[in-house]
This record gives sequence, C-alpha cells and structure tokens, in this order.
Amino acid sequence: MHLRKSMLLFVLPLSMSAFAKMQALPKTAPAPKDNPMTKEKIELGKMLFFDPRLSKDGTISCNSCHNVMFHGGDGRPVGVGVHGQRGGRGSPTVWNSAFNSTQFWDGRAATLEDQAKGPLINDVEMGMGTHEFVIDRLKQIPGYVSAFKKAFPKDKDFITIDTMAKAIASYERTLITPNSPFDKYIQGNKKAMSPQAVKGMKLVEEIGCTSCHSGVNFSGEEKMGVGNFQPFPQIPGSKYDKLYDLLSDPGRYEVTKKVEDKNHWRVPTWRNVAINAPYFHNGKVVTLDEAVRVMAKTQLDMDLNDTQVQDIVAFLNALTGEFPVQTMPRLPNTANTTVTPEK
Amino acid sequence: MHLRKSMLLFVLPLSMSAFAKMQALPKTAPAPKDNPMTKEKIELGKMLFFDPRLSKDGTISCNSCHNVMFHGGDGRPVGVGVHGQRGGRGSPTVWNSAFNSTQFWDGRAATLEDQAKGPLINDVEMGMGTHEFVIDRLKQIPGYVSAFKKAFPKDKDFITIDTMAKAIASYERTLITPNSPFDKYIQGNKKAMSPQAVKGMKLVEEIGCTSCHSGVNFSGEEKMGVGNFQPFPQIPGSKYDKLYDLLSDPGRYEVTKKVEDKNHWRVPTWRNVAINAPYFHNGKVVTLDEAVRVMAKTQLDMDLNDTQVQDIVAFLNALTGEFPVQTMPRLPNTANTTVTPEK
Repeated sequence: MHLRKSMLLFVLPLSMSAFAKMQALPKTAPAPKDNPMTKEKIELGKMLFFDPRLSKDGTISCNSCHNVMFHGGDGRPVGVGVHGQRGGRGSPTVWNSAFNSTQFWDGRAATLEDQAKGPLINDVEMGMGTHEFVIDRLKQIPGYVSAFKKAFPKDKDFITIDTMAKAIASYERTLITPNSPFDKYIQGNKKAMSPQAVKGMKLVEEIGCTSCHSGVNFSGEEKMGVGNFQPFPQIPGSKYDKLYDLLSDPGRYEVTKKVEDKNHWRVPTWRNVAINAPYFHNGKVVTLDEAVRVMAKTQLDMDLNDTQVQDIVAFLNALTGEFPVQTMPRLPNTANTTVTPEK
Repeated sequence: MHLRKSMLLFVLPLSMSAFAKMQALPKTAPAPKDNPMTKEKIELGKMLFFDPRLSKDGTISCNSCHNVMFHGGDGRPVGVGVHGQRGGRGSPTVWNSAFNSTQFWDGRAATLEDQAKGPLINDVEMGMGTHEFVIDRLKQIPGYVSAFKKAFPKDKDFITIDTMAKAIASYERTLITPNSPFDKYIQGNKKAMSPQAVKGMKLVEEIGCTSCHSGVNFSGEEKMGVGNFQPFPQIPGSKYDKLYDLLSDPGRYEVTKKVEDKNHWRVPTWRNVAINAPYFHNGKVVTLDEAVRVMAKTQLDMDLNDTQVQDIVAFLNALTGEFPVQTMPRLPNTANTTVTPEK
C-alpha cells in the first residue's frame, strides 16, 4: 500500500502543470462565519496569547512555545510546559497557521478556535485543569472583563472558553508573513529568487514533494477543516526510521484509533521552514539539508545527491517571509493582589 | 540597635520637609559614563532581553521573570527558571529599575550591567553554565553578530559578556513609567490624586516610611551604586516573622557574610507596587493592604488601623504609572539549523 502510493508519484507526468499552480501567500486569512475578525477581538487575543497567567503557575503563555517574536515556534525539539515538563512533539509555528489544513501535528483540532482550547488544560503544557478554572481566573482580572465585553458586545455570557478561543484565533489569523522571495517571484519578479532556488522549486515539483506540500502554505490548505494527512514514513524501512525514531509516535492514530492512521501526520507548512529548526514532529533532525534527505528517502524512496539537496534547501530558504512589526500587548493587572500566588 | 533605629523615626519632627522633597519620576534614566545610550544598543538589548536562547534549553528569557508586557515582574512568589526550578526570591520589576540604588534583592550587583550577567549562569535561572557558553551561542546567530557590530562599532571584540550586559542595561534604562497620578499631583495638578491618596501620602511621611522609601523611585536612589539597605524585619518578634517566614533568608548577609547584614535587604521601589503582587523577597504576602500592615509593624512597630491602611494603599495605587507602548523585537534566526537542539 505504502509502496504503491509512492510509485504513483513517479508515474505522474513531469509537466509544469502543478508548478503553475503555486501561489503567493494571501495577505489576509479566511475566518469562520461565526468568528469574523474585529480589532477588539484581535487586541484581546493578543493579550491572551502573551499572558502566562493562562497557565497554572503563571509561567507559560501561548507565546512560550509559539514565539511570535521568533519564527513562531520555540527552536526546541519538543514543547516545554509548566514545571519544566517536556511534551512529546515539537511546537508548530503560529505564523501562517491560519492556512493550515487542520491544527496540531495529528490534526486533532479542525480550527484555530479548537486548537486554542487544548494546551490550556493539558497537564504537561499549561496545566490549568479545567476550562472553568481558566475562565474563573480571567474573571478576576478587571482588564479582561472589560476587554471581553468590548470584543463580544452581543454575547450575554461574554467570558467563556469559546469567546476566549475566538479572540486568540482572531489574533493568530493576523500572523501572516508575506513577501518571501518566492512570493515576489511567483508574482512576476523573476529576479527575486536565485537560480539555485528556482532549480529547487522545479525539483520539488518534479520529484513529487508538492503533491502533499501544496497550496499557498505548502501544507494542503485546500483540505482545510478536513485535514491533509499523510504517512510519515510513507515507505518504512530506511535507516532513518531508527536513526530519528520515526515510528514510535503513531501520530494521527492517537486521535482516530484506526490502524490505517498509524504514523500519519498533518502535512506541515514549508513557509519559514528554513528558520524553524529542529524538524519533524519529534524535532530529532537539526538541519534542513538532513530533513530534505530524510523526506526524499522516506516519502519518495529517493536518494538525493548533494546538489539536489542544496537546490531544494535554497528554494525552502526562499520561502522565508516578512514578519510584520507588532506592538506588545499590555497585560491587564490585578490591583493590590495576584492571581498566581502558589505553585 | 534595631529598636533604637526605629525609635529615631518617631523623634523626627513631623514636618512636611521630607514630603516637600517628593519628586516626579524623570523621563530618562542616568547611564554610566562608559555605557551611553544609543539606539543600536537599545534595540540589541531588547532582542537579547526577549530571547529564550539565552537559557540552556531555550525556555527562559529575561522577560520570563521580568515581564515587560506585565508589571515588569512575573506575579509569582518566586522566579522560575529552566526545568521548572523555583528560585528562592521573587523577581523584582524591571520597570524603573534604572533608578534602584543597587540591583537584586540583596544588592549583589551595583549596576544594571552587573545584574544582567548573573541569571544567565545561575543553575536555577537560565542555566547557561558559563559566560563563554553564552557568547559562543550568540556567535552562532548571524543576526546577533551584525547587531553587536552595529551597537559596538569601536570594540574590536564586540561580542563579549560585557557588551551584552551593556546592551541589555541600555534597553532596561528605557523602561520608565512616568505620569502616575502622584507624578501629575507633585507637578501641580492637585486633582490628579484622590483626597484619600493625598491622606496616604502625608501618612507615609508622618510615620516614617519615606525615610527609607525615598527619592524619585521611593527606593533611595540617592544611594545609587552604594545601596540603600535596611533590616527587614527592623523589629523582630512580631507574629509576621513566622507567618510570612521573614527570617529564614538572611538577605544581604549572603553577599557580605557580615553578621550586621543579616536580614538586611535593598529597599524596593513603590512605583507600580499596587500592581506588582505578591510582596516581599519571598512573595509570601499576596495583598497590598497586608503588605502595608506587615511593614508598619515590622519596621515601625505600629499597628495601623484600617483607615490608615486604606489611605496608604490609595497612595501606593497613585504610584502606578503609564507603561509606554513598545514594539516587539524580532529575534534573529539561525538559517537551516537550531542552537537549542537538546534538553
């Protein structure tokens, strides 16, 4: 089954038809009908995103692992939560996450709204126990009460886990990195990418990488809400399975408990991938050239030569976009007391 | 000795002479001669301040405990470093720290430059082991190499622990919160403070609080570089010693090993104190009114009544300043690799 899928890629005609479909990153992201973007929601979402009081002991904010000032991840193999606890997987970047097909490595959240609710009550992440505890704490902070009221003026119950998730998702939808060399190239500036990067761009089409890494975010956002899942490794048995421990985490199987989902993963974005090491769900691969070699071997059964690897790396580097300057939020205070007195 | 000091306060004439000396917060902070402020140093310092790669495992930045978006502290009893380790003392606010008489609770650093070097190599804070390790890591990040070169163009060896500390200190000297109600009041707007806050302001003078909490930062910055140290408790024996564990940490004694420095502490600022709970070196006191009661009893042997406490609390609330809007730094990347691959 795995082998057959892989072979299919090689019988595809090596035309430029798929290449012609490559698109620049939009400057705005789609929002769900029930959560249109507003300035008030975005501002509130930014406050919440940066507030470590959303963790039990006041040490971890969303930004701790999804660092907006950095590349949107944390540069570490796996996320780190309260009490220094290590998670099992790396922190996906929040930049351009609005264009992901689903959220989390295993796609267990269909939307950014759903995603935002998870880490809060995960014991090894923010450790808040229950969503009620989260909301109770927010209600103790007068600045949040007023900010929620402004952001959700029509909601009678305006501070809930759902309004909170909507605000965070609204902020996250503003995190877009346009104007990469690739974007400029595809929009007509043929000098924006180096000849080597252009070679790499053609190569990823020819050998089949973009059959999964498709769409504006190179992650298959045409399957948004459904999920663009693929086996990794597609072709088990290479030296990399053991070298980088590729098989021990069953991935999407954890969510569905279906055998056919074992070691399936949501296809991650290529946007800013060059600055977002280490690589893969477990962060075991430190450099981009090695990640390219691993993917070619495990997904396409190809041993790339050094020139091919470097061409693809050059292309992936051309996908590093512009990170817009942001102002820092001001986290609302609690006068004369604290909401995180204890461990 | 302790009692004599305390009694002295009570024989001071209760004139308004000290009160007349109260001053508004300056809008710029003094910088040492060998570290004049420049735009380039401030920008570099901001990047460094927010960069978790300054900790061993990439989880803790200066901002983790001294949160600029918050009140400059972390809202927790004690600081939390790498691997979830708890420090022994609370995190002093970085806002207006340029006006402190010395740095750290025990004053073990005379300047912000000296302070910046400490937590990096403290095992329970950022855990970097040695300053050499810090500098080696920074040199692997091209954006830092160029930013240091710009900030220190005359230094042959431009990336050192000293230039790094200078940059961080330069950024910290920009963190000033002017225009509190008190500042407006003292500059002539007599409506800026409530009558209750004015009563509180007079009371802290009359009973002697401002003999230690003096100067523009209410922390004795006239003793800058020397240190404004005081015993706490000044008068041991109250119920608070045990209730809030006031005696187990010997404070400045840890630095000097002199018996007379036991339980002596650097006088902390009152600026933004109302929003910077929990209180004291160990963060054991959660509310400001209780902190006022404890100080009156342990330092002045006074049992304040509720009205007095509330008047003082009102005054301290009038010391919450304006936090200027800041832009987020962009943390320089390492293309195609990471500098924090391991735990």
